[in-house]
Amino acid sequence: MKALVYTGPETLDYREAPDPEPGEDALIRVAHVGICGSDMHAWAGHDERRPAPLILGHEVSGTVVGGPGKGRRVAVNPLVTCGACAVCRSGRDNLCGMRQIISMPPREGAFAELLAMPAGNLIAIPDGVPTEKAVLAEPLACGWHAVRLAQRALEPPIEGARCLVIGGGAVGLGAALVLAARGVPEIHIAETNPARRVIVGRAGDFRVYDPAAGKGPEAVDLVIDAAGFEATRALASAAVRPGGAILHVGLGSAAGGLDIRRMTLQEITFIGTYTYSAADFRETADAIFSGGLGALDWAEIRPLSEGARAFADIGAGRAAAPKIVLMP
Amino acid sequence: MKALVYTGPETLDYREAPDPEPGEDALIRVAHVGICGSDMHAWAGHDERRPAPLILGHEVSGTVVGGPGKGRRVAVNPLVTCGACAVCRSGRDNLCGMRQIISMPPREGAFAELLAMPAGNLIAIPDGVPTEKAVLAEPLACGWHAVRLAQRALEPPIEGARCLVIGGGAVGLGAALVLAARGVPEIHIAETNPARRVIVGRAGDFRVYDPAAGKGPEAVDLVIDAAGFEATRALASAAVRPGGAILHVGLGSAAGGLDIRRMTLQEITFIGTYTYSAADFRETADAIFSGGLGALDWAEIRPLSEGARAFADIGAGRAAAPKIVLMP
Repeated sequence: MKALVYTGPETLDYREAPDPEPGEDALIRVAHVGICGSDMHAWAGHDERRPAPLILGHEVSGTVVGGPGKGRRVAVNPLVTCGACAVCRSGRDNLCGMRQIISMPPREGAFAELLAMPAGNLIAIPDGVPTEKAVLAEPLACGWHAVRLAQRALEPPIEGARCLVIGGGAVGLGAALVLAARGVPEIHIAETNPARRVIVGRAGDFRVYDPAAGKGPEAVDLVIDAAGFEATRALASAAVRPGGAILHVGLGSAAGGLDIRRMTLQEITFIGTYTYSAADFRETADAIFSGGLGALDWAEIRPLSEGARAFADIGAGRAAAPKIVLMP
Repeated sequence: MKALVYTGPETLDYREAPDPEPGEDALIRVAHVGICGSDMHAWAGHDERRPAPLILGHEVSGTVVGGPGKGRRVAVNPLVTCGACAVCRSGRDNLCGMRQIISMPPREGAFAELLAMPAGNLIAIPDGVPTEKAVLAEPLACGWHAVRLAQRALEPPIEGARCLVIGGGAVGLGAALVLAARGVPEIHIAETNPARRVIVGRAGDFRVYDPAAGKGPEAVDLVIDAAGFEATRALASAAVRPGGAILHVGLGSAAGGLDIRRMTLQEITFIGTYTYSAADFRETADAIFSGGLGALDWAEIRPLSEGARAFADIGAGRAAAPKIVLMP
């Protein structure tokens, strides 16, 4: 098969690679595969969990061409968990000690024509829903999950909350769309890229602003940091109200930025969030399929063969779309 | 009256000061007044909220000698809130936007013979309970409050939790005593001072260890950081299990130490906590009065006139007791 192989820092090679050996798993012909911030992190050479050479990519939709469910169009939950441990049984399967995600050894990713995946990780796509929308289930499930954890942490309930989302990529925009679907009345989105601000502003009833211009909201109930850099955490810990919550989804940098003194004196809660439970993923896919998360027309689609340029464009800040999706 | 006045970094002057003017408030003759970590922070010149000259001290017991409740022995809740705003009415009165604490302008503190205080902040001490135990209501209420917030955040319930408390001062030891009173089966206390480790080990069924020797517990459900320095936050974010919680009470340093990457990948919750609600304070005092928090025989009592030396001893790490209480 053809694949886009990460071969070293800022280097991707579109080339022949061995077909996956599915064994008991389903074999999927990839239709769409999104580029995630964590793919960018690996591409930049900053993720020791993803050493070259490796096929990246974990946001996938496609058609089963072999094994269980053959013929079905599916969205892929890329997180493989044991399903049997106490953590999995408690519904926090994303924290399973055995968890694996495709695009990280020992599992290859999906920037390729074919992917092998356990049948339990596949969600059938209803007729009439295109694979290019179903592929957004993965990034949107991250926002879905973060909002669910926020609902547990917040008093009073989230339905009356003033919220700030930092980062207008697919995870941040997805979180904003989930908040809107919950009836949250005031949703601010901080995004530094002016072209992306325009696109994000069209995706829903959001107050989109440039945090570099420093005119953001104050004393919000909830901040969702979908970027996860020192500067965004500093913004988060300054903008949240006493007793409010920061949900931290982004993996931009490993430490720093939080004003811990203020967080202590003002009893701010910080919750790290990683991916989604299997239930979150299914619920997100259902919300996409039923139209509950909007038109989802803001992704940009490019050929997989030109993936290297897409990574370079995102890395240089030249990509306006909240998501670039590649098509083998 | 005589008072111990903070006059500049690492300088305290035991001298005459004007008597408080109580107005509608109760006038209290101070019996015991504890030295808190935040007093130490101010004494070191690191708290811009507490400029010299100022009378520090906010952990107080004494006898009402004028105004409402005259003749009663009382424990003092030093946090004055409006009681009327939405935050106060919701039970989070410690986050009241109008909150004041004695020892911070405009309110003088209690390292003095006399203190004026609103009657609503006074808890009557039952006969038979000495003021030297009642004075511990304030630091123990901080632990009580942190444990209450932890109970909301943790799944499964705290009663089966493995816990680590960082810091064996009165706040950390108090938190450990509250955990023990809740039936928590495994409580570790990290304390670097060897003499204090001995005292803390006698105060309850705790596993006391030296974190500098690096043989602490792993994958605990809950960490209560009662110190709040970069090193203790690094310890906290390494020792907590996936999905666990860090309750951050200490105000040692303003930033740094947290492994935010791990906290994100492993969905760790960090909750800043500040003081206590009025209800927490009352419940803590009741638990002290009924003996529910142990013998409380670990504080060291010194004369207020020798307060400067007590501060210097604590600052130099020469004080073994979890709490030094001064007596005017």
